[in-house]
Amino acid sequence: MEKQLQILKDKLKQIHNLTKAAEVLGWDQRVNMPFGGSEARAEQMATLEKLAHEMFTTDEIGLLLESLAQANFDDDSDEAALIRLARREYDLARKLPPELVEQMSRTFSLGEQIWAQARANKDFSQFQETLEKIVDLNIQRAEAYGYQDCIYDALLNSFEPGMKTVEVAQVFETLKAELVPFVQAIKGQAGAVDDAVFRQNYDEVAQWNFSMEVLKAIGYDFERGRQDKSAHPFTISFSINDVRVTTRISQDTFPSSLLSSVHEGGHALYEQGIAQTLEGTLLANGTSLGVHESQSRLWENIVGRSRQFWQFYYPRLQQFFPNQLANVNAETFYRAINKVTPSLIRTESDEITYNLHILLRFELEQALLEKRLKVADLPEAWRAKMEQYLGLTPPNDALGVLQDIHWSGGSMGYFPTYTLGNVLSVQFYSQALRDMPDLPDQFARGEFGALGSWLRQQLYRHGSKFTANELIKRVTGDTGLNARPYLDYIKHKFGEIYGV
Amino acid sequence: MEKQLQILKDKLKQIHNLTKAAEVLGWDQRVNMPFGGSEARAEQMATLEKLAHEMFTTDEIGLLLESLAQANFDDDSDEAALIRLARREYDLARKLPPELVEQMSRTFSLGEQIWAQARANKDFSQFQETLEKIVDLNIQRAEAYGYQDCIYDALLNSFEPGMKTVEVAQVFETLKAELVPFVQAIKGQAGAVDDAVFRQNYDEVAQWNFSMEVLKAIGYDFERGRQDKSAHPFTISFSINDVRVTTRISQDTFPSSLLSSVHEGGHALYEQGIAQTLEGTLLANGTSLGVHESQSRLWENIVGRSRQFWQFYYPRLQQFFPNQLANVNAETFYRAINKVTPSLIRTESDEITYNLHILLRFELEQALLEKRLKVADLPEAWRAKMEQYLGLTPPNDALGVLQDIHWSGGSMGYFPTYTLGNVLSVQFYSQALRDMPDLPDQFARGEFGALGSWLRQQLYRHGSKFTANELIKRVTGDTGLNARPYLDYIKHKFGEIYGV
Repeated sequence: MEKQLQILKDKLKQIHNLTKAAEVLGWDQRVNMPFGGSEARAEQMATLEKLAHEMFTTDEIGLLLESLAQANFDDDSDEAALIRLARREYDLARKLPPELVEQMSRTFSLGEQIWAQARANKDFSQFQETLEKIVDLNIQRAEAYGYQDCIYDALLNSFEPGMKTVEVAQVFETLKAELVPFVQAIKGQAGAVDDAVFRQNYDEVAQWNFSMEVLKAIGYDFERGRQDKSAHPFTISFSINDVRVTTRISQDTFPSSLLSSVHEGGHALYEQGIAQTLEGTLLANGTSLGVHESQSRLWENIVGRSRQFWQFYYPRLQQFFPNQLANVNAETFYRAINKVTPSLIRTESDEITYNLHILLRFELEQALLEKRLKVADLPEAWRAKMEQYLGLTPPNDALGVLQDIHWSGGSMGYFPTYTLGNVLSVQFYSQALRDMPDLPDQFARGEFGALGSWLRQQLYRHGSKFTANELIKRVTGDTGLNARPYLDYIKHKFGEIYGV
Repeated sequence: MEKQLQILKDKLKQIHNLTKAAEVLGWDQRVNMPFGGSEARAEQMATLEKLAHEMFTTDEIGLLLESLAQANFDDDSDEAALIRLARREYDLARKLPPELVEQMSRTFSLGEQIWAQARANKDFSQFQETLEKIVDLNIQRAEAYGYQDCIYDALLNSFEPGMKTVEVAQVFETLKAELVPFVQAIKGQAGAVDDAVFRQNYDEVAQWNFSMEVLKAIGYDFERGRQDKSAHPFTISFSINDVRVTTRISQDTFPSSLLSSVHEGGHALYEQGIAQTLEGTLLANGTSLGVHESQSRLWENIVGRSRQFWQFYYPRLQQFFPNQLANVNAETFYRAINKVTPSLIRTESDEITYNLHILLRFELEQALLEKRLKVADLPEAWRAKMEQYLGLTPPNDALGVLQDIHWSGGSMGYFPTYTLGNVLSVQFYSQALRDMPDLPDQFARGEFGALGSWLRQQLYRHGSKFTANELIKRVTGDTGLNARPYLDYIKHKFGEIYGV
């Protein structure tokens, strides 16, 4: 058994190396690549991905996994987790017929171009036919994977393994019931927060230097990573010891440039914190998109938008921007950075209304996949929900149904993980607070090491050994997702800011 | 036949994509990678190289090549060249027994570490045993490849396909006979050139900006490449449309930082100039190290160290460095940048004595491989030749036999291509001058387009379609390597500067 495990590990290592090589090529493409390199790069990445897929889906891997199913490893051991995860991914990979894989690959890569064109023209009708194909292919994909309760389960499972739609739906119902009226109440007090401070220009080099200082402070290890600039901020891991982040900086992007750095820094702390013993295996990744997002949100919102954080950092920030911040005090700044304004665009939305954007997408995706909604009727359904949840009506499709890239690239079932991240961030953080009640005081002194160690110990070091639900149980004792702590956090924080 | 060719092309394309992916990883390693990434990166690159090797050396590729040997493609066609080159590389790859490949890989990668340690300690004896193994492995490699005239042929062939040691040796004999006394004569006039201007600090950003301006001017296409910084300057190609250069800049590295940019720019012009029809094939590379080096030297030395180049660029340079250059005129600068001083270190040597450093290595490599010289006696042999050719005696091994990395990494037969590059640069440039006698006047006006077009037309577009000797014949009509034009160029240029 030991021998077969070693053979499996060796084979998976080769595949891992190919996958990580593709990641390096992807990073370079988004950070450094000159325009001319696009075509060859797409082919290079396709070759790596194709080889990795071929090497993973051989009968030989299947036979190894079958014989290892008899092995008696302790459930909590790295070995058992590796075999479980390999089995899960192998089954998923083998369930898709090659023709479907090929059809998806072609449709999804064309999809992004057609979507970009339609968005530029603010015209959904140019994207409608493509989106119909994409929805249909996702239905075929879900049928190939199989599901028990509802079709959405099959797709959600790729991003949030083991999580059921019904659990997620319940979280959203709770959020909807309390957040929609809460946002309405805040709207009535909009004047309570003034964010004029951000409508100034901020020097790019100073923004960069400040973001580097904050990244270091929260524990991002620059010996095992680096920050660069890219059009869209992202985090990527080539190994536990080379985890990189990017940010987007221009004169008018403060404070979002800084908060992007902290957000990506949170993702990166997770990847850098995985146990070295898992390096080079399938387990050396964050376990799900929701748990990953919980870490980016925890550092961005719970830490990076907290009053204590700015108690420490605001005087420092004033040194970087003496002119812009001379007449603004820390409290005004804290309130400005937490301003809540219902808006049309998800990526520009605040900590609260972000969830309503996700709710809308989650509901529409389910309706599409269950064929309760036709693609042709999607823009109208979008407008109706925007009106209902945010009280806004998009004046055109570019500011409405065409704003996100996800569907055009074939991703359905991905969106809810953003809100799961918000909910989970508070579930985990609440436990950290129970264990270390003085955390906020530490933040006020610029100390983030205790929180970092706790998260590493509780979450990061495990990599993908446990699913989200298993982690929730291990760390918090809760039986699963629970929106209550998140709602309490939101209501307390923003109730205080807005007096509602 | 068409069908078999297509199958071969498809297979080679996959292998090419893997090889180029490994290049991207290598570039990142040298330009961006944080320290922590080393270990995983080495494994990722090893996987890519191993897969590429396995995919290339299958029996299937052999059978395809055999059946395509019957095909009737025109000798000058891309198809015939592709089949020829694939055959040549396939035969070489298949000739090495896997055990030898593995032994070399291990010894050579350890070799670099042991060498670095020995060099730091200035102690050849710490490296002796390793070098004995390396020489022995290279003898085994050469025997596996096979050869007719002398063992050196077998190794030289990897870097300079089709070139014979006897041709190269004849070039070196001619150079030795004339350059050794010429350098002696210059030594007698050392006072004729004053390079005090370089013993000042030059702002790094200004150096960078000037180098970018010059790269653009000589025709380097930044839409299809980029310049970065690295510890050792290099050029690398991920595709014809993504060819990158690096340079090393610090306050005390001017003018070598600029000349490095122009040197690497020359390599890059070659790679960017390959015909788009060859993209993604084995032919989309420069044809040999010697021809490649001829292009870096042509742009660095013949253009970049010419009086006409500085006639145009010196006033511009003075704008970048008004303080440093206020009291230095263009002629003084031109002479300083061409100062000849016998020195101990190859990489710091001038345009002329560089060849004597290479001559010494070429002679010692032959003696080692033919077992006329024992590794134990190498430091002494090195000192004797340094005395004979350059009139200098290294005070320790670090400044002598341990200075270069090449042998420690297993490369033997590589060094002579540096001097072949010098010789070829003038053979090719002389023809360009016959075709366009006003080239120097163009340089004096800052115009480099005509030379660039001529080189693209005559050399670059062919990629690896023709060997060095075939190119010499096609471009210049000469029957092969000819040291005469190079010697005439050197004697004319430096005779004038030094009055000898």
